[in-house]
Amino acid sequence: MNWFDDSIMARKGVARGKAGETYAITEESQGKYHYVYGAFVDPILRVDPGAVVSAETHDAFEGAIRHETDRPSEILNFPYLNPQNGPIWVNGAEKGDTLAVYIDSIVPRGPQPCGTTVIMPEFGGLVPTHDTALLTAPLPERVKKLHVDPVTGVKWNDRITLPYEPFIGTIGTAPEIEAISSLVPDYYGGNMDLPDVAPGAVIYLPVNTAGAYLYVGDCHAAQGDGELCGVAIEHPTVTTLKIDLIKGWTIKTPRLENDKFFMTIGSARPMEDATRQAYRELIRWMAADFGFDEIDAYMLLTQCGRVRLGNMVDPKYTMGASVLKSIVGSPR
Amino acid sequence: MNWFDDSIMARKGVARGKAGETYAITEESQGKYHYVYGAFVDPILRVDPGAVVSAETHDAFEGAIRHETDRPSEILNFPYLNPQNGPIWVNGAEKGDTLAVYIDSIVPRGPQPCGTTVIMPEFGGLVPTHDTALLTAPLPERVKKLHVDPVTGVKWNDRITLPYEPFIGTIGTAPEIEAISSLVPDYYGGNMDLPDVAPGAVIYLPVNTAGAYLYVGDCHAAQGDGELCGVAIEHPTVTTLKIDLIKGWTIKTPRLENDKFFMTIGSARPMEDATRQAYRELIRWMAADFGFDEIDAYMLLTQCGRVRLGNMVDPKYTMGASVLKSIVGSPR
Amino acid sequence: MNWFDDSIMARKGVARGKAGETYAITEESQGKYHYVYGAFVDPILRVDPGAVVSAETHDAFEGAIRHETDRPSEILNFPYLNPQNGPIWVNGAEKGDTLAVYIDSIVPRGPQPCGTTVIMPEFGGLVPTHDTALLTAPLPERVKKLHVDPVTGVKWNDRITLPYEPFIGTIGTAPEIEAISSLVPDYYGGNMDLPDVAPGAVIYLPVNTAGAYLYVGDCHAAQGDGELCGVAIEHPTVTTLKIDLIKGWTIKTPRLENDKFFMTIGSARPMEDATRQAYRELIRWMAADFGFDEIDAYMLLTQCGRVRLGNMVDPKYTMGASVLKSIVGSPR
Amino acid sequence: MNWFDDSIMARKGVARGKAGETYAITEESQGKYHYVYGAFVDPILRVDPGAVVSAETHDAFEGAIRHETDRPSEILNFPYLNPQNGPIWVNGAEKGDTLAVYIDSIVPRGPQPCGTTVIMPEFGGLVPTHDTALLTAPLPERVKKLHVDPVTGVKWNDRITLPYEPFIGTIGTAPEIEAISSLVPDYYGGNMDLPDVAPGAVIYLPVNTAGAYLYVGDCHAAQGDGELCGVAIEHPTVTTLKIDLIKGWTIKTPRLENDKFFMTIGSARPMEDATRQAYRELIRWMAADFGFDEIDAYMLLTQCGRVRLGNMVDPKYTMGASVLKSIVGSPR
Repeated sequence: MNWFDDSIMARKGVARGKAGETYAITEESQGKYHYVYGAFVDPILRVDPGAVVSAETHDAFEGAIRHETDRPSEILNFPYLNPQNGPIWVNGAEKGDTLAVYIDSIVPRGPQPCGTTVIMPEFGGLVPTHDTALLTAPLPERVKKLHVDPVTGVKWNDRITLPYEPFIGTIGTAPEIEAISSLVPDYYGGNMDLPDVAPGAVIYLPVNTAGAYLYVGDCHAAQGDGELCGVAIEHPTVTTLKIDLIKGWTIKTPRLENDKFFMTIGSARPMEDATRQAYRELIRWMAADFGFDEIDAYMLLTQCGRVRLGNMVDPKYTMGASVLKSIVGSPR
Repeated sequence: MNWFDDSIMARKGVARGKAGETYAITEESQGKYHYVYGAFVDPILRVDPGAVVSAETHDAFEGAIRHETDRPSEILNFPYLNPQNGPIWVNGAEKGDTLAVYIDSIVPRGPQPCGTTVIMPEFGGLVPTHDTALLTAPLPERVKKLHVDPVTGVKWNDRITLPYEPFIGTIGTAPEIEAISSLVPDYYGGNMDLPDVAPGAVIYLPVNTAGAYLYVGDCHAAQGDGELCGVAIEHPTVTTLKIDLIKGWTIKTPRLENDKFFMTIGSARPMEDATRQAYRELIRWMAADFGFDEIDAYMLLTQCGRVRLGNMVDPKYTMGASVLKSIVGSPR
Repeated sequence: MNWFDDSIMARKGVARGKAGETYAITEESQGKYHYVYGAFVDPILRVDPGAVVSAETHDAFEGAIRHETDRPSEILNFPYLNPQNGPIWVNGAEKGDTLAVYIDSIVPRGPQPCGTTVIMPEFGGLVPTHDTALLTAPLPERVKKLHVDPVTGVKWNDRITLPYEPFIGTIGTAPEIEAISSLVPDYYGGNMDLPDVAPGAVIYLPVNTAGAYLYVGDCHAAQGDGELCGVAIEHPTVTTLKIDLIKGWTIKTPRLENDKFFMTIGSARPMEDATRQAYRELIRWMAADFGFDEIDAYMLLTQCGRVRLGNMVDPKYTMGASVLKSIVGSPR
Repeated sequence: MNWFDDSIMARKGVARGKAGETYAITEESQGKYHYVYGAFVDPILRVDPGAVVSAETHDAFEGAIRHETDRPSEILNFPYLNPQNGPIWVNGAEKGDTLAVYIDSIVPRGPQPCGTTVIMPEFGGLVPTHDTALLTAPLPERVKKLHVDPVTGVKWNDRITLPYEPFIGTIGTAPEIEAISSLVPDYYGGNMDLPDVAPGAVIYLPVNTAGAYLYVGDCHAAQGDGELCGVAIEHPTVTTLKIDLIKGWTIKTPRLENDKFFMTIGSARPMEDATRQAYRELIRWMAADFGFDEIDAYMLLTQCGRVRLGNMVDPKYTMGASVLKSIVGSPR
């Protein structure tokens, strides 16, 4: 049996995780991309649970950085960054439910070199920023354009080629009353930049308002832990999602499931708080659904929990905490 | 000469800091209060620079906590907290300008005891929270209602009466494209909970979008540094503001001026980042307008800078950094 | 009545806070200064409670930075920084007791300009450091020598003179089994750089090992909150202390008392943890000795607590939390 | 060729990584274990580079917690925790050199159940602590004793058995002038609790003082990322190390090499600073020895760097940053 058939999505989803109607969001049908996560705009699409949606995502710069001689600080127009497809209204979704999104595939699109990474002022993990506000001069700006190929990988230089390991940098639902920049990760998802949000995984997202308002964008062709300089291998893609809805399952922050593990995701500063969020939710999950007493789960994760640093560069840092399915078994 | 006549507001404001037309926002005329800072709603008022606006503010709980036997966790309906008056559209305000708001007076209103403070779960500086997510059980909830009198002060108990030292907990402009919870402080102001935002001071706020969209609410009758348990002496008031506009003066975060000092305000986590933000802006201000070289300002503030902790309980911590006017003199 | 006569030192000290024998530690009698806080060296002095000790302190650079053309990075020899007088053995002091040290006076000594402040690489609150390890280039080094006069103040330049507000940057007892750099502040005191540790105050220090091993050094002629660039107005002094011993009073971190307030002192990173330490100890103190229930103290400090940022540049940040004597009254 | 033959230890070590004389440190020959990292005690052993040393390590509680009914808070005597073997003097080691320690094996010893983990007050990642000082009541204490078998693993309960994945929790050299608790991790190593410090790896440690003074202890039979509750599967072992010395190679913080990757290790609070330390050192290493320009290394690690959280419970958090050998190749 495929692990997915035993996933929470397949067992609890309104559509039982099965594919329903298919939809395509093209650049044209999307029209205006969005820079905030919120419910103040009209949905681009209304779907039933089970819908399979392919979206033409832009890179985080909406394609504006084309040449290695470009200067990001002159081209980019903050806060109009990290354009998002959507929002997608999911029929039947209400506050307190959970959206289950299976990531089916991510395929690069557009002319080569379609990958972009940059150094820009006041952004990144090892430079002064708006928050870690220091007096030292910024690093020189730099743009690197890279050939991205799903088979041969991401060509860094003549000597180094990185494997193509794509994932979704930004995905989430609308907050209940807010509209928050797509640069921010938080309890509703958003700009988590967590490499586990990859094809073959299911991400579970809290529904905060009727219809859920699912957004997606910002796919990365490769990224290390922390997205250190702030910019992964950004690239435009066709990203295909299967969307289901779990009624009456309320989660506080995003969760993830793949063939190997269950993960909870925290976003906060400082980084220990993101880690605490993730681990506390994992403990509570183990207590609620896997038959552990809370203290026992705390002690067990001390011995076998794993953490994955998503980003250490966005307005909140993102950390995933996970436990192997081989250890905790299946949830109720 | 009154210090105000030499203030930046008086010298640079479109209305030269002079009082113009007066307006009153009553509970009735406000109607629906707001829980986000954003430009997605219609202004309640459109005013010219110089406008003097009196607003009937609610307490942070919209008056819902009435008795010491109330349980906040049952009564309060997150995120519908910290109700705000406004927004006020300021004619002529455009992105890149600065709003200057002189705080004229804060007067308690409503039946006594009109002051409220509470302990509630997952909120406060010395308890586990959504961010600092720990496993230990919350403190018991507690509500304290207090008699607040502008003259005799805030009666804590038979032995202790605190002076009435009112200030505005939450004030700010709309972000450019976001709508952010009124519980959050950030570069546009918001829930800073900084006791220096008091009658007799001018707060300068960045204008991020046409009309500025000024919001105000959440007045406190007294508060210590950090707002330790998360809830100051909340009370409903009539708060009177004089609003002016400084064209072409662009600031990145709120600033404040009173008879004694100039202050810059940072909001971030961890707390050192809020402090860094505030101090860096103060240095840059001293370099831009007071004739210092940046390194000299850095060294001088090392010897005479002062910081004031606003809150250590909100989604971002707020810190003000200040320097005495007697040391730096007047800005250009 | 002088407030001191009602101080904890005067009421609980073995010597009742009264002056006993007097001692002088000169540069000559000190001989080798110390760079760690520990009990691995022989005391320079053994005194009874009540002893009044005058010590010739060095500046933090042991006088090595003499000219504005000096380059600190070439002259200073890490970790041989922040030289300390002592240790002083206090007869009768045992683990679990508390040392009470009244700061009688601080007087500058040495040829003028006797004040020094510097910018040096990898040190300071607004630059990359060993801990906040960034890639941007350091600021240029800079040395400033200043004339320090107890009456006329600290001459910054022709326009600015700062008041002489001296205090002890580094004071504390030996840890039980460790020997820790005098650059570090922690539960035993050390390099707190807190301006309230000034003439006219009593600092209470935990005794961690027999004899207490009191060290002192690093006096500042002026300092702003946070000691922003890392170096206050360092100057050599004659510092006079009255030392008493409180048997059987066990404190976890330093505390302070002056004519106006009681203060607890926390040292930690991030800064919110230093603040939490300080406030929690203050609450526990109010519960133990001032008749408050712990939650009531928590709620009251929310309304009237004050914090003072000592340093935001040392290996741990230091924060003092205080409450007015006029509010809490006298301890038991 | 075995990867070790091409390791830095084998290429640069005085002994070329080859095994020399063998030594055994038994409980008896060790006598008194140590609770600080420092050079204030006599070495237990003096060895030449190449020495192979087997040490009988205690568990972190020196075996004092024997039964699941024990109460750690009554039995443990802070700061006499985390007993260390050593110090070992390495002939020829001088400040500025680097110690290379190949971890040959870790074998459990002592009567079963030889594994111990506990919940104790004020310690752990998801509870209030001395630093994150909150008011909520501690979790109940709990002791768990576990059967540890190198082949069958660590028996958690009837359903769950964890693999035996032993590593060294605490290893390092003496600081130059300090003596620091073995509970602390820092630039000299110490209580890093990083699972990569495991058999088959080489750890490189800065020599800060003549002889290096190598200490080791605190082996864990299994541990998750972060050592969440503060106590891994502690167990007594025979741990065998091969010790070599690299003259004239100066490193600022510990580094590690195994068959797959090169790693740098940072210890700091908050957690982002530990991560920054680790990543900056990795970048500098790549620039110094692998032919990268610093900005290029920064951009490349953004795409392929990996981080491993050691501990989030000790006085400093520990983070390792690594890059695959398959990407960066061999150092000069």
